[in-house]
Amino acid sequence: MKLKHLVSAADLNRAEAIQLMDTAVEMSSVSAREVKKLPALRGKTVVNLFYEDSTRTRVSFEVAEKRLSADVVNVSAKGSSVSKGESLKDTVQTLAAISADIVVMRHSASGAAHTLANSGWFDGSVINAGDGTHEHPTQALLDAITLRDRLISDPLGKDLSGLNVAIVGDIAHSRVARSNLLLLKTLGARVHFIAPPTLLPRALSAQAVSSHHNFDNAIEEQSFDAVMMLRVQSERMQAAFFPSEAEYSKLWGLNRERLSRMNNHTLVMHPGPMNRGLEIDSFCADSENSTILDQVRNGVSARMSVLYHLAGTERNA
Amino acid sequence: MKLKHLVSAADLNRAEAIQLMDTAVEMSSVSAREVKKLPALRGKTVVNLFYEDSTRTRVSFEVAEKRLSADVVNVSAKGSSVSKGESLKDTVQTLAAISADIVVMRHSASGAAHTLANSGWFDGSVINAGDGTHEHPTQALLDAITLRDRLISDPLGKDLSGLNVAIVGDIAHSRVARSNLLLLKTLGARVHFIAPPTLLPRALSAQAVSSHHNFDNAIEEQSFDAVMMLRVQSERMQAAFFPSEAEYSKLWGLNRERLSRMNNHTLVMHPGPMNRGLEIDSFCADSENSTILDQVRNGVSARMSVLYHLAGTERNA
Amino acid sequence: MKLKHLVSAADLNRAEAIQLMDTAVEMSSVSAREVKKLPALRGKTVVNLFYEDSTRTRVSFEVAEKRLSADVVNVSAKGSSVSKGESLKDTVQTLAAISADIVVMRHSASGAAHTLANSGWFDGSVINAGDGTHEHPTQALLDAITLRDRLISDPLGKDLSGLNVAIVGDIAHSRVARSNLLLLKTLGARVHFIAPPTLLPRALSAQAVSSHHNFDNAIEEQSFDAVMMLRVQSERMQAAFFPSEAEYSKLWGLNRERLSRMNNHTLVMHPGPMNRGLEIDSFCADSENSTILDQVRNGVSARMSVLYHLAGTERNA
Repeated sequence: MKLKHLVSAADLNRAEAIQLMDTAVEMSSVSAREVKKLPALRGKTVVNLFYEDSTRTRVSFEVAEKRLSADVVNVSAKGSSVSKGESLKDTVQTLAAISADIVVMRHSASGAAHTLANSGWFDGSVINAGDGTHEHPTQALLDAITLRDRLISDPLGKDLSGLNVAIVGDIAHSRVARSNLLLLKTLGARVHFIAPPTLLPRALSAQAVSSHHNFDNAIEEQSFDAVMMLRVQSERMQAAFFPSEAEYSKLWGLNRERLSRMNNHTLVMHPGPMNRGLEIDSFCADSENSTILDQVRNGVSARMSVLYHLAGTERNA
Repeated sequence: MKLKHLVSAADLNRAEAIQLMDTAVEMSSVSAREVKKLPALRGKTVVNLFYEDSTRTRVSFEVAEKRLSADVVNVSAKGSSVSKGESLKDTVQTLAAISADIVVMRHSASGAAHTLANSGWFDGSVINAGDGTHEHPTQALLDAITLRDRLISDPLGKDLSGLNVAIVGDIAHSRVARSNLLLLKTLGARVHFIAPPTLLPRALSAQAVSSHHNFDNAIEEQSFDAVMMLRVQSERMQAAFFPSEAEYSKLWGLNRERLSRMNNHTLVMHPGPMNRGLEIDSFCADSENSTILDQVRNGVSARMSVLYHLAGTERNA
Repeated sequence: MKLKHLVSAADLNRAEAIQLMDTAVEMSSVSAREVKKLPALRGKTVVNLFYEDSTRTRVSFEVAEKRLSADVVNVSAKGSSVSKGESLKDTVQTLAAISADIVVMRHSASGAAHTLANSGWFDGSVINAGDGTHEHPTQALLDAITLRDRLISDPLGKDLSGLNVAIVGDIAHSRVARSNLLLLKTLGARVHFIAPPTLLPRALSAQAVSSHHNFDNAIEEQSFDAVMMLRVQSERMQAAFFPSEAEYSKLWGLNRERLSRMNNHTLVMHPGPMNRGLEIDSFCADSENSTILDQVRNGVSARMSVLYHLAGTERNA
């Protein structure tokens, strides 16, 4: 694989996405071993550069890096040079100068990872761990792995052709939705959006197979193989897009009653952390249809796979 | 040893407690080597999940884990998903999904570690690193190791039969006192409480050999092999249990004068960090009777021993 | 080398400084390898004890320590026992008790590292990673390595005899300036200060070859091989030493025009993080004369060299 960076889900063609998913399956067997350790990244320096807090994503990457034997350094923007006014350029050139091989970056600004990867400031690999409302490609990868593992028999080497996946909620502010849209389409799945008009930009809805402004109607009109519930991110919404949490929950939340009107096999997905009782109720979160813990598990495998292939690219470059 | 979790000092019977102490002696020889490293936990993932800050306890566990070659991930509740409203259940299921083998948890809620260990959410091992005002079993273990090492000749294989240990101060709010009461009794020692009535609940005093509301009278009436001074935890006291720090120090502090009226061999113990001049004066803290630094040293060995046995249980389960 | 601690640049005689620089050159070849890893500090415990935030310095040390295979524990004073009122003595004795081999300390109080190294509280090695306005010896070492590498041909084994180095800006509050003054003189270089009278104490200017209160005149009067621009540390200045940032920039900042009046080979140095547009403009920071990224790169090598020699001293002591 010629992959150098993973900034956008659009960086992956179908063959690369399938290879990353297949390698992730191998990596999951490493995490199931007594000794969960491969030497693949020994003597490599990986920097987790987090300008936004995200314990779940940081821990998932850190575990993946350590299982591959990398030297790991965590940098949180809190209390870093950033607070002394250092620019992204100077921060990143510094990481280049200490011979970091891979930088995993979470940033509040959309496009930050792209800037870093294309700046010429840093000759290592860049993994986008979430940039503003833009993208979160390893989340899309772990979601695809989860869908394939649960819905496609004999999954190695296969894509997601023909699956119908609904993404529900605040599409407008969701990097998870954007990255999933791109990767699911690359893998042959059909993406449906379900959202209030205020939270579903036309530019995005134009790329989906269908868009719905009423959850119940959508369930009647379309048969879904999976519903991906987005987190209500109060912290990222800059205005009042819906009147109240109760209202949101009633109109856009996944609950037992709605789930009962879907297929028996319909998967319930959520990127976490959940607001139980808001976008999803506990019945759905904890049901057998839920893949929420599979997603977390596949997150480690997906990141090990990406790290493994990027480090290999580096080595042979 | 069949130990899966260490949530309470009551989890240990006499034989197990002695075995953990004996293994800790071996572990202390590892920490005295040129190369302080054993491969026992290689490829194991240990998560230090700290909902409360405690640099001393976290560092002690982290050093123990790294000397046993574990992959270590620190999670502080500050700036974690917790601050986005995630429940303990969801946090812990997440740690299970990333294949964590051992979770070391410090939590402000009494019972949190018990909940975690018995929830079925997580199939790894749980070590309670302090839960509210409830328990701190590795602290009791390191205290027992310290007592045995200093007061029992040829200590391997032995318990603490016949030793008289006074615990002095804020018994009511002290997880250190609770865990020590349990483990010291299991090991055959005699526990005496010395505290103002407001800080010594009857349910606890009923379990001690004697209780005293006057430090000076207690010294006259009883011969102590060790006095364990508790930290005044202003941050955990929810009301004014004593009129002033000067008053507390005068009535309940250990000072040179009081120490001079005890046995020559009486050990001075403190779990740290000390409030010098409040519950203990510097003469006592730095005297030859003080075991305060031995306790820190034995803390690493005690935690290595617990980690070693829990990981072994896992392996053979 | 008999070095036990590195607290001050004055701890190093000429031979030791040259040996540390020569070893750093070897270490830089480790950082250029596919597998950036040496076993030199395997089984050693290194504690990075940072009472002040400094992401750049902490990351540089942490990368150096991990490339040498040490077990690394980071302690930030934020949320540590320090905030519960623990003294430096108790903190450090605790680190001694957990068998730390090396403590790398950053502290806001001038003299803190000296106190630690000479207290008898800790028998390991102490590296001063910056103490108040006093010293930052590894910064001076990496600056010397950078100067030698860029200006001296066939540099191994050599010192900096004859080089003219200007240090410009807030000399009074700069530990970088103090440590550089000492080490540059030890290595035979000629130090010149350029600063407003309010920011250049007489005790320091007396130790330089020349002192200047006008940057432009200094450039005319003296030929410099390097100009070391100091960071304007608003957070460390306790009073208004200059009227405005614009004024500072105009009188004391390095800009394209001033650089054009220096030698073609004059190096532009800065310890980072830069205030671009204040003490240095982007033309100079990014010019071919700039060594700013070399300094970062040499920072890792310098710290690997110091750690390597201190650990060896320990071993043979």
